[in-house]
Amino acid sequence: MVYTAVMGYGVVGGGVVDVIENNRDLFKKKIGDDIQVKYILDIRDLPEDKNADKLTKDFNVIVEDREVSIVVEAIGGCKAAYEYTKKCLAASKSVVTSNKELVATHGPELLEIAKASGAHYFFEAAVGGGIPVIRPLANCLSANRITKIIGILNGTTNYILTKMISDRMPFDEALCNAQRLGYAEANPSADVEGKDTCRKIAILASIAFGRHIYPENVYTRGISDIAVEDMQRADSMGYAIKLLGCAQLIPGGDVEIFVSPCAIKKTHNLAHVHDVFNGVQITGDMVGDVTFIGRGAGKLPTASAVCSDIIDAAIDDASYDIYWQDRGSGFIRSFDRLTFKYLDGTDIPVVD
Amino acid sequence: MVYTAVMGYGVVGGGVVDVIENNRDLFKKKIGDDIQVKYILDIRDLPEDKNADKLTKDFNVIVEDREVSIVVEAIGGCKAAYEYTKKCLAASKSVVTSNKELVATHGPELLEIAKASGAHYFFEAAVGGGIPVIRPLANCLSANRITKIIGILNGTTNYILTKMISDRMPFDEALCNAQRLGYAEANPSADVEGKDTCRKIAILASIAFGRHIYPENVYTRGISDIAVEDMQRADSMGYAIKLLGCAQLIPGGDVEIFVSPCAIKKTHNLAHVHDVFNGVQITGDMVGDVTFIGRGAGKLPTASAVCSDIIDAAIDDASYDIYWQDRGSGFIRSFDRLTFKYLDGTDIPVVD
Repeated sequence: MVYTAVMGYGVVGGGVVDVIENNRDLFKKKIGDDIQVKYILDIRDLPEDKNADKLTKDFNVIVEDREVSIVVEAIGGCKAAYEYTKKCLAASKSVVTSNKELVATHGPELLEIAKASGAHYFFEAAVGGGIPVIRPLANCLSANRITKIIGILNGTTNYILTKMISDRMPFDEALCNAQRLGYAEANPSADVEGKDTCRKIAILASIAFGRHIYPENVYTRGISDIAVEDMQRADSMGYAIKLLGCAQLIPGGDVEIFVSPCAIKKTHNLAHVHDVFNGVQITGDMVGDVTFIGRGAGKLPTASAVCSDIIDAAIDDASYDIYWQDRGSGFIRSFDRLTFKYLDGTDIPVVD
Repeated sequence: MVYTAVMGYGVVGGGVVDVIENNRDLFKKKIGDDIQVKYILDIRDLPEDKNADKLTKDFNVIVEDREVSIVVEAIGGCKAAYEYTKKCLAASKSVVTSNKELVATHGPELLEIAKASGAHYFFEAAVGGGIPVIRPLANCLSANRITKIIGILNGTTNYILTKMISDRMPFDEALCNAQRLGYAEANPSADVEGKDTCRKIAILASIAFGRHIYPENVYTRGISDIAVEDMQRADSMGYAIKLLGCAQLIPGGDVEIFVSPCAIKKTHNLAHVHDVFNGVQITGDMVGDVTFIGRGAGKLPTASAVCSDIIDAAIDDASYDIYWQDRGSGFIRSFDRLTFKYLDGTDIPVVD
């Protein structure tokens, strides 16, 4: 029996518990063993919950239970999630998460602890939701030198931009719309100002280029100053405006990385990624461009990615491990040194 | 040192040899050991070739050399490739290939031999060229029940169809064009009549549904009877005509599978996959639709996929192994029992 614990019982954590409980046969087939959620960590009292018998408020119960080999961190943020992840990994428990903030902020330290203890730290769900992108980047394209990554990595802003062009809806109204539909949070700044996209492109670039890129070193511009008129002008010139995370290896080894609303030709694969969908285009020296498109958020798509990581952790497969190190920030080309072509009459860079 | 042998020194085999020789540092980093091509099997005399010292005509030299742990089968077809693959796997040598005909025809037997001997049989390059699709389907989406796969799986026919609509070029002329550019072979029937697409969708469906699907059980219609007028009519109604391989799990467990020119809405992600590019859309019960787009053929994209399989074989990772069995064909729903909506005034099924 493989025993797991789920920390944080919100949308993601609850989804993972449901999927494990409802798809035991599928897990058994893949892992070759039964799997069970032994504990659910949450600070709330939930006596009526169907999983009340598994709920605990005490993290120590989890970290001290030798039977628990895999812990799902669905707390989010960098406080308790950071402390608990460190302790779990140090106790040789594998940790699986969708927490992009934590990976982007403390990735090298956590990967180092995992490596030293023989545990795994997996985070496929941190970028692109359910779209397989981290594993393909790290494993399937392993024979390539990755030269470039550009991605629509945030569903909320992509939904807003889609509404702005398809319904000529001003930014504020599109944002309210997104909030009403549950696509945007009450405080939408992490999405709208590009922070979420920044964390995700920083993670992808760290994997691709083998050196950690801290979000604070990435020039980041959001979409709140984009007007419907900008989008219409772009449209009339054959372009779509998308919030992109862009990272590129420059000859010599430096890395160009930024987040910005960008104009891309309508013939570009990412120009057709609409609504809450995400899309990532990865360029390798052999394979050329490959593009991955799918739902970048949501309970089940995220649970899909988390659960595939749980299966890999249960198989206990070191060859899946991803590893990179902190090597300062000297290799990051600052944004003001980059040269762009701008869309006529705007300050929006053109990317291809 | 990891010793490999490459059987068949054509475009794919030559590409693989070049990539291994030119990217040793990359392989060493991933594998943790040096890698070397020890033999190249080819029936031709090539005394002037830069790798003349590695060339052999004798397969037994390879299969009897205990140092060789990984063999690349780039012969193609089901004759020598089949015999040699069986013997290599039985001798516990892992085999990596892009040979879709062999996998589609003898997959279950070869996977069984590999399983019994502890060797790996990997074929990421058999479908979608360099696009990571087999590994994501088998591993990254492992927590999903796959319900549907549709794909543009043949670059030659996609190039022809693209030319027919973008340049109003009749089929015959577009085919000549493709042949002149090296996209189509002198005898183009395997591509044009849909056989190549059939093998590929059969492989993807076999992985997804866990039961082997033989190409001869898949209804297959090619594109040679598609007229420019059909494509224009589709275009005016908001559709694109693409040659699709389609496979779907029907409630109850049967499988619907066919290859046909199909009409898809222009808003569909695959409608924007043009020229020689391939695209695959996989639907899982949790993740929803995910789409993979990239170059489906060519020396380097194919070598990219073969080399990532070589790396996985060198790591000797059983958790990557894919396995399915022959369980007859009773579960395949015959094409005449399927019901379609047809594009007005044509016999072209509409797919979404």
